[in-house]
Formats: sequence, structure tokens, C-alpha cells
Amino acid sequence: MKTGETRLNEFTSFTSRAAAKAIEEFGSPVYVYDEDSILKRSKECLAMPHAYGLTVRYAMKANPNKALLEIITQAGLHIDASSLNEVIRAHKTGIPYNKIMLTTQEAYEGQEMDTLKTMLLDGLHYNVCSLRQLYDIGDFSCENYIQPGLRLQPGIGSGESITRTVGDGYSSFGIHPDDLDEALKYAWGKWIKFKHVHIHIGSGSDPEVWQRSVDILLEAVAKRLTETESVGFGGGFKVARMPGESSADIAEMGKYAKEQITKFNKKYKRKLKMEIEPGTYIMANAGFIVTKVIDKKSTPQAEFVLTDGGMELNSRPLMYGSRHPFYVLSGDGTQIKSSEFSEPPGDYSAAVVGKCCESGDCQTLDIKGHATARQMAEPEIGDILIIGGTGAYCSSMSPYNYNSHTQAPEVLHTIGGGLKLIRKKQTLEQILENEM
Amino acid sequence: MKTGETRLNEFTSFTSRAAAKAIEEFGSPVYVYDEDSILKRSKECLAMPHAYGLTVRYAMKANPNKALLEIITQAGLHIDASSLNEVIRAHKTGIPYNKIMLTTQEAYEGQEMDTLKTMLLDGLHYNVCSLRQLYDIGDFSCENYIQPGLRLQPGIGSGESITRTVGDGYSSFGIHPDDLDEALKYAWGKWIKFKHVHIHIGSGSDPEVWQRSVDILLEAVAKRLTETESVGFGGGFKVARMPGESSADIAEMGKYAKEQITKFNKKYKRKLKMEIEPGTYIMANAGFIVTKVIDKKSTPQAEFVLTDGGMELNSRPLMYGSRHPFYVLSGDGTQIKSSEFSEPPGDYSAAVVGKCCESGDCQTLDIKGHATARQMAEPEIGDILIIGGTGAYCSSMSPYNYNSHTQAPEVLHTIGGGLKLIRKKQTLEQILENEM
Repeated sequence: MKTGETRLNEFTSFTSRAAAKAIEEFGSPVYVYDEDSILKRSKECLAMPHAYGLTVRYAMKANPNKALLEIITQAGLHIDASSLNEVIRAHKTGIPYNKIMLTTQEAYEGQEMDTLKTMLLDGLHYNVCSLRQLYDIGDFSCENYIQPGLRLQPGIGSGESITRTVGDGYSSFGIHPDDLDEALKYAWGKWIKFKHVHIHIGSGSDPEVWQRSVDILLEAVAKRLTETESVGFGGGFKVARMPGESSADIAEMGKYAKEQITKFNKKYKRKLKMEIEPGTYIMANAGFIVTKVIDKKSTPQAEFVLTDGGMELNSRPLMYGSRHPFYVLSGDGTQIKSSEFSEPPGDYSAAVVGKCCESGDCQTLDIKGHATARQMAEPEIGDILIIGGTGAYCSSMSPYNYNSHTQAPEVLHTIGGGLKLIRKKQTLEQILENEM
Repeated sequence: MKTGETRLNEFTSFTSRAAAKAIEEFGSPVYVYDEDSILKRSKECLAMPHAYGLTVRYAMKANPNKALLEIITQAGLHIDASSLNEVIRAHKTGIPYNKIMLTTQEAYEGQEMDTLKTMLLDGLHYNVCSLRQLYDIGDFSCENYIQPGLRLQPGIGSGESITRTVGDGYSSFGIHPDDLDEALKYAWGKWIKFKHVHIHIGSGSDPEVWQRSVDILLEAVAKRLTETESVGFGGGFKVARMPGESSADIAEMGKYAKEQITKFNKKYKRKLKMEIEPGTYIMANAGFIVTKVIDKKSTPQAEFVLTDGGMELNSRPLMYGSRHPFYVLSGDGTQIKSSEFSEPPGDYSAAVVGKCCESGDCQTLDIKGHATARQMAEPEIGDILIIGGTGAYCSSMSPYNYNSHTQAPEVLHTIGGGLKLIRKKQTLEQILENEM
């Protein structure tokens, strides 16, 4: 058992005492994000090897909180937006349109199309992801000297889900190579050059598949997209949340991309700039869900630890079978009773479940959706249980009003070691205010 | 192809033209609920055979919209609440505490406990679901002549998920039979009689497993819970959403329960009242998500139809592999081009995906999470695609702000055939208002 002021994760400055303080000050459950870790990861991405220039775009859908967007963009990152609303949200934060790139499944008409056009005139970067999107914007681009980019369907994918990816033939993202000739023919008539081309194989992706996607994109750029000047390799770099997992090696990946882009230049005399779009990589391990243990139960089959925050704060185990590290702390945060990173991690085994009346409200589901037990020190009611690796795709992608629960507050653990509220806890009145 | 004013589902009065009108008036995507269907299902539940009295409680977590709570309670149903917030929400709607029963995984302290106690004094029914919950309320119950009920862990379960249930040994809901002696001993000292005992085996449950749960509960009531006067058999009655699926036969189930309760009376001279808690059964097929087809794509492996509403309105395919019927309508609603209930359902096959940048944003995922294709008439961009069977656990259990999308409006298709807005579309400003 570790006592005193102990870091919760070797990569972050967030400590057990700060976790207890977060609950004391802002209530339980609460999301805490570690500024130090966010900055370190941002710098790591900015230092990725490249040949002729690198733009790093934060995939804001991972966690679009205003304070986080500010930290990340002030560190030097640009923005990858997935919807018109995300562009509006980023711009409201003070980020200029020319530092935002929109790559979306949406299609626009009427007022939304007018909004998009205004943004494009103000410098927004836009990747067309389908023939419809291209046709919708073709005349306008031609008349206004706007150069949209193009998202290419790579035909391969990788990711955390064992059954789905973003890039393979069973996914709908981007223009498929079979449609590229049609896109190019149309673009030629509208003076559209596709100076930027984008590819993305999925979140949590395998570095080897990523390397293949680099090859696929460069081949397309060599032979078919001959006016392309910059290539976007997407994001989704794998992050180790649990012991035994390994993170993508950004430096190695960059080295590969740099070599290929350098070779490409030798062969084709074209100096390609490079872009990447990390979301998970920046935020996942910088985020913690701090909960209180509110109950314990047992059946002949299993032990259960009940916390006051579960699927309504983190649905990733239910949606993707994702695994997250746990830290069991004394209620005052002075002791780390156990953590996944202890050896052994504890002498008790339990499934960790939340407070929703729902079979899926379990943080220890396996990939098949079975509730499994996890080793830990046996917590007492009133102890703190922290769910790590929850900075990305948790607050942004959870059904936070299920069972009429209110959205949990979000807190920043600052470089200085303080705690700063960056999103107030939602009230029940706010849930009800749109009801008639 | 059916033309004109055509019902979308043999059980509802909602029509193709009304769907088009809903989009025209309130924008796309939009949830539409059919009042006629809600009332029919409510009446069906109220008519369930019983021996010595029946209370039907609507499981409001399925869909807690105020207008729906009003319709359902005015039809004669009481309320099953799963959290303190749900009790507050129902009570704000005008439903008295004595028509609300709280059965929850939550545990309360401080102000929340005070709130619970006030509600109990005002008539709220409360089932203790763990020893902690019992101990927390024991003295207060004793002093104030409050009689909490008890939720028993049945040890068996059933439901839509192939891997999880609410009732078996791998679920944490209720007091396990092994802990019942301890609960009874404690209760005896506090004059608590457990006049009501509750059991629940999961949502979408098999009628045969439900019958076994009836037997399990009656056996416990016969031998160990000898002062129990009413028995709650939970809800989760299976509903057929797709052709070939079959709904639970409420009349048959009631007949079985009635027989068993009558036999029980013959043997033990105790007339047990009965309670049920339908949620899905009332709402699932009364709800439709009306979307517009915004794009189409293809790869050598698959065809894709993109709609402007997906996982952020209905995450059940992603969370549970649930299947929903589709209706493809012309943009003006005058033609049903195809529906799952047509024979054949169409001559084109496609996966239906949404507008989120997410591999899981697919309405045609199978139970393993694979994107599959569904037969339909090939829709044009601008056509309407309706996702049926989405009245329960969709608006209440979806990550509606993912990709910074705003919560879709909810509309009631009234008995009179009109459309009434019952929840306004959320604005982006509302998403941002708690950010600091």
C-alpha cells in the first residue's frame, strides 16, 4: 500500500490526494484532466519526425471541452473537426478558421451550407469525403478559388474494436478509390486540385496497419493525385491504458513516414507536407473518472463493487469492450490501496458496476460483453475508485442523462497542482428545460 | 410501393405523410411517438390477468419525457423510478409520491438522504436493493412506521443481450438469497415487514424465464418472506420489433402468474397483489426516429446509406446489437418505397450509417458488432429513412452530444392525428453553457 502524495500514473502529475480533493470540492463522480500530461503528449506529437513540415490537429471529438481546446491549441496544435458544430465550437474558443480542418460525414443544405461557405471564405480547411460533398461545393470552390481537400477510403483499417474499423471496406468514411476517377474528372472541370489528401484507419490502430495506410496514400498521391502538396495520415494512435498494453511509438511511426515522404520526393520531385490528427493519444491517459464506492454485493458467481459513476460517464466498455485501469484509494486519498500497476494488483476480485439500472452498466465488461472480475484491494464503502484512461471519448461519448443522472463536472488539474473547474455539473433543471 | 397515407406499423396510427410533416415542421432528425400506440399498450398491460389486484408501473428510464409520463399515468399506470432524480422528475410532472416506486442501485448520504426521507414520509414506495440500503433506512423506517419493500436477486436472468442479464449471478441487482437471512434478521429488529417484494430478470426477457422468476419469488415469499402482501415481477417484456420476432404474450404471462398466485392462496391463505413494470413494452414500437438520407457510398465490400441521425439518437445497435425495422419513404412521404414488413423488403442491400465520425455509428450492426447490410428499396438522397422500434432506451440512453451534435427534438403524434412538440431541439449554446 502506497501512502502520501502518490502519482496515479507514471505519465501524469495527478495524485491520490488531488483526487480526494477533487471529490471534496466538486462532488463525486468527477472527471479530472491533467494539464501536465496533455502538454507532454502534445509536445510529443509536435516532435514527430517529418520530412517537409508537420501540422498536428487535435481530434476534438475525443474531448471538446473549451479549456482543453485552449491548452492544446496554445501548445501549437491545430484542430480536426468532425461536424459543423465542432467548427463553431472551436471557433468560439478563439481558434481561427485557418487552423481548423473539417472532415465529416455530414452533408449540408440551406443555412448550414451558407455557414460552411462563409467559413471556407474565412479560411476553414475542408476535406470532401463523398462525391455528394464534392458536387455540393464544386461551383462555389471554383468561383471563390477555394481548394477543398479529399478524404480517401484506404480499404484497410485497424482499431480497438475487433469487429469494426474506420478504414476498411465495411466502413463508409471517405471517397473510395473506385470513385476517385469520377471525383478527379469533376474536380478538373472546377479547377479543384486536391492539394490536401487525407486518410484515416481508425482509433487505437495498429502501427503496422498505419504504415500500410501511409504507403496506400503515397501511392495514390504519386499516380492519381498529382497536384497534392500535403498528406494527412489521420490519428487514432494506440495508447496503452492497461499494464501489458503498448502505445504506438510516435517517433518510429514518424520515422517511417519521413523516410517514405523523402523517397517520394527523390522519385517524384514533390515535397509533401504531413498532417496527423491525434485525439486519444493526447487525452486518454490524461483523464481520470474519480468515483466513490457506494455499495458492495456478492452472489455465488461474483463479487461486485458499486461506484457512483459508471456507463453514464464512460460507455467505452459497453460499446467497445475497452479496458481501463482502476485505482482504489482510501476515502481521504492518503493511501493507494491498490492499482492495476501494482504487482500483484490486489488480493480481491470484483466486477465494477455503476448506479444505473442497466445490465451494461459495468466497467469490467470484456470484448464479448461479459461482466468479468478485476483484481484489486477490497475497497470499503466510502473509498475512492478511480477509472483511468478516460480522458478521450468518455465525457464526449456517454449517455450522461441515462436514468436522469446529470452530466458530471469536469476539472483541470493544472501544471501548478491546483484544481480548476472547467465544466460545471449539470442540473436536473437543465435536463428538463427543453421539455414542453 | 405503397402510396398515400399509409400506417408505418400495424400497431400504430403514425403514417408516412405524418413522418414527412414531422421533418418539415421540426427538422430532421426527429423522434416521433404515437399516442394511440402508447395508450393501447398501456391498456393491454392494465388488462393483464391477475388474482387479487394489479399495479402496473411504467419503467420511466425507458423514456422519461414529461408528456409521455402524463399520458401513461393518466391511462392508469404508476411509476417505476430508478434514481432519486427520476422520482423528482416524475413528481414535478404532477405524479404523487404514492404512485411512484423507487428501486435503485444508488446509495444516499447527506442532502440526498434527507430528500429520500421526505419523499418516504410523503408516500414514496422504496425497495431496498442491498444490505447497505436497508441499514441506511432501518432506524428511520422504524421510527416513522415506513415499510420499505425488498428487491430479491433471482439468480436467473434473460434479456436482449446474449451476454448479460439483469437477474443472474453475474449481475448486481437486488439482495441475493444468501443475504436474505441477514436482511430479515435486521428488519425484524426494526419492525420492517417487507410487505412488498420485487424481482426483475432483464429487459427483452424470455416469457419462460419470466415464469421461472415468478416461481422463485413465490417460493421465497412462501417460506422466508411470510409477511409479504404484494409481489412485483418486474418488466422487460419482450417486444417484436422485426418481422419474425415475437412479443411476449402479456395475457398468457398474466394467466400463469394468476394461477400461481391463486394456488399460493389455497396453500398459504395469503392473497398476494401483483405488480409489473413495463417500459419497452409500452414505448418501444410507439417510437420512430425520422431521418433524411444525406449521402450514399459504396466499396467493393458494401453499400452504405448515410442518414442525418444515427448512434447519437439510437445507440442500442452499438450497445446491444439490437435490430430495428427501416422504412424508406419518398422525401414528401407520399410513398413507402420499402419497409421491413414488405415481402420482399426491397431489391437493394446496404448498411445504414449515421453522421458521426465513429466506426460504431451504424444502425445495422449485428450482435458481434459487425456492420451488416439490410434489404430495402434503394433510397435517393433526400428520401426519408425511418428507424422503427425506437421509443424506448433511445432518447434516454444515447450519447446525444457526440461530435457536438445537439439533442434531437421529440414530437408526439396525437390521437387526433396532429403533431405536438414535446421536447425542443437542444441548441449548441445549451451544450456550452456549463463550460467555464
